[in-house]
Amino acid sequence: MIYAEELQKNPKLYIFLPLYYTLWADSVLTPTEIEVMQKLIKKQRWLKKKEKDWLNQNINPSKAPKPKELKSWKKKIKELDLENLEDLSQIGIALVKRHDSTLEIEKTIINDFQAAELALGLLSKEAGYTFKSGHQTITTEHSKVYNFGIQEMTALLDGNQANLIKKVKTVISDPSFAYKEHESLIAQREQVLQWCKNLADQGFGAWAFPKSANGKDDMEGYFTIMETLSYHDLSMVIKFGVQFGLWGMSVFFLGTDKHHQKYLKDIGSLKLPGCFAMTETGHGSNVRGLETTATYDHNSKTFTIHTPNPEARKEYIGNAAMHGQMATVFAKLIIDGEDYGVNAFIVPLRSPDGKLVKGVKIEDCGRKMGLNGVDNGVIYFHNVEIPKENMLDKFASVNERGEFESPINSDNRRFFTMLGTLVGGRIGIPKSALSATKTGLTIAIRHAEKRKQFGPEGGEEVPIMNYRMHQRRLMPPLATTYALHFALKYLTQRFIKRTEEKAQEIEALAAGLKAYTTSFSTATLQECREACGGKGYLSENRIDTLKNDTDVYTTFEGDNIVLMQLVAKNRLTEFRQEFGDMNMFTIFNYITNQAKTSITEKNPLIIRSTEQTHLLDMDFHLSAFKYRERAILSSAAQRIKRHIDDGMDSFDAFNVVQHHLVNVGQAYIERVVLEEFQKEVMDTNDGDCKDALLQLCQLYALNTIEKNRGWYLEQGYMEGVKTKAIRKEVNQLCWEVRKNALALTDAFDIPESCIAAPIASRD
Amino acid sequence: MIYAEELQKNPKLYIFLPLYYTLWADSVLTPTEIEVMQKLIKKQRWLKKKEKDWLNQNINPSKAPKPKELKSWKKKIKELDLENLEDLSQIGIALVKRHDSTLEIEKTIINDFQAAELALGLLSKEAGYTFKSGHQTITTEHSKVYNFGIQEMTALLDGNQANLIKKVKTVISDPSFAYKEHESLIAQREQVLQWCKNLADQGFGAWAFPKSANGKDDMEGYFTIMETLSYHDLSMVIKFGVQFGLWGMSVFFLGTDKHHQKYLKDIGSLKLPGCFAMTETGHGSNVRGLETTATYDHNSKTFTIHTPNPEARKEYIGNAAMHGQMATVFAKLIIDGEDYGVNAFIVPLRSPDGKLVKGVKIEDCGRKMGLNGVDNGVIYFHNVEIPKENMLDKFASVNERGEFESPINSDNRRFFTMLGTLVGGRIGIPKSALSATKTGLTIAIRHAEKRKQFGPEGGEEVPIMNYRMHQRRLMPPLATTYALHFALKYLTQRFIKRTEEKAQEIEALAAGLKAYTTSFSTATLQECREACGGKGYLSENRIDTLKNDTDVYTTFEGDNIVLMQLVAKNRLTEFRQEFGDMNMFTIFNYITNQAKTSITEKNPLIIRSTEQTHLLDMDFHLSAFKYRERAILSSAAQRIKRHIDDGMDSFDAFNVVQHHLVNVGQAYIERVVLEEFQKEVMDTNDGDCKDALLQLCQLYALNTIEKNRGWYLEQGYMEGVKTKAIRKEVNQLCWEVRKNALALTDAFDIPESCIAAPIASRD
Repeated sequence: MIYAEELQKNPKLYIFLPLYYTLWADSVLTPTEIEVMQKLIKKQRWLKKKEKDWLNQNINPSKAPKPKELKSWKKKIKELDLENLEDLSQIGIALVKRHDSTLEIEKTIINDFQAAELALGLLSKEAGYTFKSGHQTITTEHSKVYNFGIQEMTALLDGNQANLIKKVKTVISDPSFAYKEHESLIAQREQVLQWCKNLADQGFGAWAFPKSANGKDDMEGYFTIMETLSYHDLSMVIKFGVQFGLWGMSVFFLGTDKHHQKYLKDIGSLKLPGCFAMTETGHGSNVRGLETTATYDHNSKTFTIHTPNPEARKEYIGNAAMHGQMATVFAKLIIDGEDYGVNAFIVPLRSPDGKLVKGVKIEDCGRKMGLNGVDNGVIYFHNVEIPKENMLDKFASVNERGEFESPINSDNRRFFTMLGTLVGGRIGIPKSALSATKTGLTIAIRHAEKRKQFGPEGGEEVPIMNYRMHQRRLMPPLATTYALHFALKYLTQRFIKRTEEKAQEIEALAAGLKAYTTSFSTATLQECREACGGKGYLSENRIDTLKNDTDVYTTFEGDNIVLMQLVAKNRLTEFRQEFGDMNMFTIFNYITNQAKTSITEKNPLIIRSTEQTHLLDMDFHLSAFKYRERAILSSAAQRIKRHIDDGMDSFDAFNVVQHHLVNVGQAYIERVVLEEFQKEVMDTNDGDCKDALLQLCQLYALNTIEKNRGWYLEQGYMEGVKTKAIRKEVNQLCWEVRKNALALTDAFDIPESCIAAPIASRD
Repeated sequence: MIYAEELQKNPKLYIFLPLYYTLWADSVLTPTEIEVMQKLIKKQRWLKKKEKDWLNQNINPSKAPKPKELKSWKKKIKELDLENLEDLSQIGIALVKRHDSTLEIEKTIINDFQAAELALGLLSKEAGYTFKSGHQTITTEHSKVYNFGIQEMTALLDGNQANLIKKVKTVISDPSFAYKEHESLIAQREQVLQWCKNLADQGFGAWAFPKSANGKDDMEGYFTIMETLSYHDLSMVIKFGVQFGLWGMSVFFLGTDKHHQKYLKDIGSLKLPGCFAMTETGHGSNVRGLETTATYDHNSKTFTIHTPNPEARKEYIGNAAMHGQMATVFAKLIIDGEDYGVNAFIVPLRSPDGKLVKGVKIEDCGRKMGLNGVDNGVIYFHNVEIPKENMLDKFASVNERGEFESPINSDNRRFFTMLGTLVGGRIGIPKSALSATKTGLTIAIRHAEKRKQFGPEGGEEVPIMNYRMHQRRLMPPLATTYALHFALKYLTQRFIKRTEEKAQEIEALAAGLKAYTTSFSTATLQECREACGGKGYLSENRIDTLKNDTDVYTTFEGDNIVLMQLVAKNRLTEFRQEFGDMNMFTIFNYITNQAKTSITEKNPLIIRSTEQTHLLDMDFHLSAFKYRERAILSSAAQRIKRHIDDGMDSFDAFNVVQHHLVNVGQAYIERVVLEEFQKEVMDTNDGDCKDALLQLCQLYALNTIEKNRGWYLEQGYMEGVKTKAIRKEVNQLCWEVRKNALALTDAFDIPESCIAAPIASRD
């Protein structure tokens, strides 16, 4: 067509070219398209009969132009200055003028062409895009900024632990800590043991122990060490935790002076590797049910440790398969045939040269999904005899007359008190999980800044971080990571300064934050894997390891679902203490009334409000979280009561509401997390950091409300207009936070040697 | 106390014993408890002064009874026949009578004791539990049943493919296919290659090829083979898919007779291992942007394949690192400096003895999160010359005069037509994912039946499958697995019988089902891992491998989020075809009106209905799904239009609604899945199977509605009372489906040698 005589004779015909190109570009002329074009041609009085025939021939579906010809049309059009030409008619006119600048196109003709464009369903400005190159869009231009001081933010995160964090980072950045691919399970385990020895040499192992055992008597520091080490290899962290946290701390907290003097120094230096043998095959989260026995014989003044059946074998015991020489073993104490419940004993497993003690059988757990640097094993005891002093006797002992003695009468209560002292694991694990999440997010966000895919037609490709869905994938987790960082800091402080009367509340808080954080980590690392596409699947980019190593954190220290129910039960009973031991019925009434008074919050103006200032208001956020926490607790209590009143067994009643109970725990934790984050924002002096944190805090709050919007709508606490406005606000916050995203991960200040992923390299 | 003189003198005092035991059992007497007891004692006129003093002494918090004493109280109480004794007072009375059967307890005394129990907040019947052993609860007694014929259900699932499925299962159950732990990456890859050779020997490789190439010309059978093999090793499945699906099918569908004759036999027999080299490092899901060039030289009649920059290297190419001898390479065709878009070429990589062809550089992708039996590699081409006949020229060719020729003018359209022929991957992958999910669920459900944890006080432990949260974790995924099984069967049929005009719709359906299924699989296998606790973390129990091998399925064949947007865009344009090419504006109006008419469904009685018959009604389910599908599509269209009308660039407008578009895709797929599942239920003749399937179908529907309840509430399509009733119904369905759970996994009929997890062994 381009070479046609007709065009040369009458350049005015060029006005058809952009339309023809656009229609042919997808190879198919539909009946409607043909009809619209035929009408357009017919209407043009300025066309001669011959020209009309020629134009009509060129919309014959069986006579498509050749690819090369189509390309030449496009080239012709692209030679124009297309900057201000927005629709096809305007482009057509410009084409006409280029061939004969004297020609004028009448207004009626222009109208006809514009009407045709509309009838063809070509989205006015859109159609012109095909010919433009390099045009800019908001999506293309959006980009990272540095709105706050990275160092200032890091200082805020690190708080009073900054020096220790720096020290640990220096050690794990040392070339001897470089990652390598291991030839075998054995090689990997030896490397991890070696790293743990290096850490012990630095004094990190004994950090929480008393000064007499070469420690610093600094539990807070111990958690900081766990948290910071977790930027490095997680097998190393868990091996470290098994040795110094579980094995060491069980001797420290459950034992008495004689045990401390005898063992702590060697534990802290890793001269005496040991295990924490609690979990049994048949008794995972239900530790109270364990069956290993420790039978006392007053004649020989010994305990006999025994595995009565295969279900009672100790399972997944870290340090057991290769390196452990001793273990804290949890077993039911039997004296004169009477069962005194679960107590703890030090039991030798191996000689220093690795030979198993008589009566001890150990199997290797073999390969696991992750943490393959930890030598987990299965332990069976066949009548292993230990001296009386090996009982860790802080909470219970056998006296001179061979009688059981304890300041705590109830076996259950004693058991839970013992467990309570070991709650540190429920602080160390979520801290470790959060560090791994920080690394994962750093990798995924750096990649998303560099990686470009797709873009406007003819324009340059766009960093995937600029896509809304990608922001939705990564920004709320980034906000939650900051939120949890401060929540875990708060938990640590509560734990360090705990009193006996607050112990139960703090245990519940730890259980809840452990569950909430580790579930969040699992989900976020999964998201990071997918957000990095194929690159995220390659082991060299480290998300593989981060995800698989932390995957068991949702199981460690108690299954998350079981823990959340524990939290809920604690919430249900805590009212008893809070209100001076009112009985359960009074409590039920109290809660019900509480829920009723909250209804005053359901002001018709507020439940429908879509004002941005209201939606971003911290008071609104906290009220909404608190309302949910109370209302959901109250309805859980009422439901349990109703079932029991109806004659249901309480065990069944709790089972029926299990799903509800998990939400009770969740709502409680979410409120604590928000409250602490808000406090942190308020307490921040640096204005730039405060702004950045405020935005994250708003995103955490609104994203959580959005997640729970079904519940809020059901309750009539919000109406649809409001939840829709919240969704829009979450999208907008994601878009805004995206600007800070890189800076916010920089502020984690993770050693580059620990990140190590090629896709996250700074280049 | 038990040995006290007072008790012997006046056995009536025994009435206090259960209360005393209960109060002391948790070691602490609170001020309220003491007060209640003091009042109770004071009120008892029948007590002598001395007895009262003695009783008061025994509630002194500083004088707790010894553990041994507490135990003896309990033993005393447990000697009673506790069957019909429900509260502590009744137990107390029984104790009195046991010591002196002549004693009578006055009604007023009983009232006093019961009032005290109430005031102490002891949940009447609950307190008595402590003393009972082995009492039964609904939770304990719930259990599996076999309500339908397993073989009948398997026959329903397998349909007309039963014979082929059986054949494949026989092969993969052969001892030569036993799993082993591999010493190295190389050993694993060799094993997988060997397995693929065995499968080729069985004729499975060529199954979809024409009979002339020793095939069966049976595409449906090919998908069945992929699906069934996926019960075994997934590296093997992917290697199989790369060789016979991607490499073989690209030659088959993009090539012409000369290619078929030359290559297909050797591909089908695995004599000629090859690759499918499409993805480039810099161009993942955006395949149109790839940069490898194929420059035609008419003098030598050759193409020169070249990687112009590192971003254009071919990445993650299966079979490339070790075994591939040739590859279908996608490259931009350049003739005389003109770019004719992406076309496909056969390029040699290695000689049969493994030597690389000159100009080809290959790097090993190394270890991955999973699929380590597949030798993925990176390929660089440095001016590799190939003869003209190596162009796969079904859709485009270079003619005798050295000119580009194609029946499809537009480069874009040609490209998408080519891709369309390769859409089979988007059927094979979700089928493979679903098989892995079936294995995962089989393992988790068998484990949950065998594993017992916790239980009512004094009662036996309960299979974890009986806990409501565990049911919530596993039953909806089981229902969704059945739903997707039938949906993928439907997709396969649509694909096999596709016509050109339906091609785009089917491509969108495949893209959407691929995204929906693989995201579901990833989430479900994660859930299975966690539901199996520590056991699920051990590699021997196979969830590790299942999860990690399939993890990349969400990325394979296009990132799921990108695919869902593609589906949404297809949905937006499909209206154009459906309504005879109305223009976009007419369509917008149409959709808006559609949404309005649907409002008639919002009958005030129905939106509040909590009737079980209504909630379980299939028509209600489908209406709700369809309403969501239409309304969400309509609002997406309106929002895009509004943004563009407001002057926004369309690229930006689509970005702003990205989150919404993903939901459009999701809602469409969910409707299709439900519709097909319902049809399957209706078509089932076997009554027992029909009942079981109906329940699963209801669970799939209601669980999906519950998941989207925020949206339904926002729309006013349901009110809170109804969504709450739906939640309850989901809980109840989980409880019911749980009974069939084991049978439903048995019906998958997965070879035991493929399940292979010790925790899932049949014993």
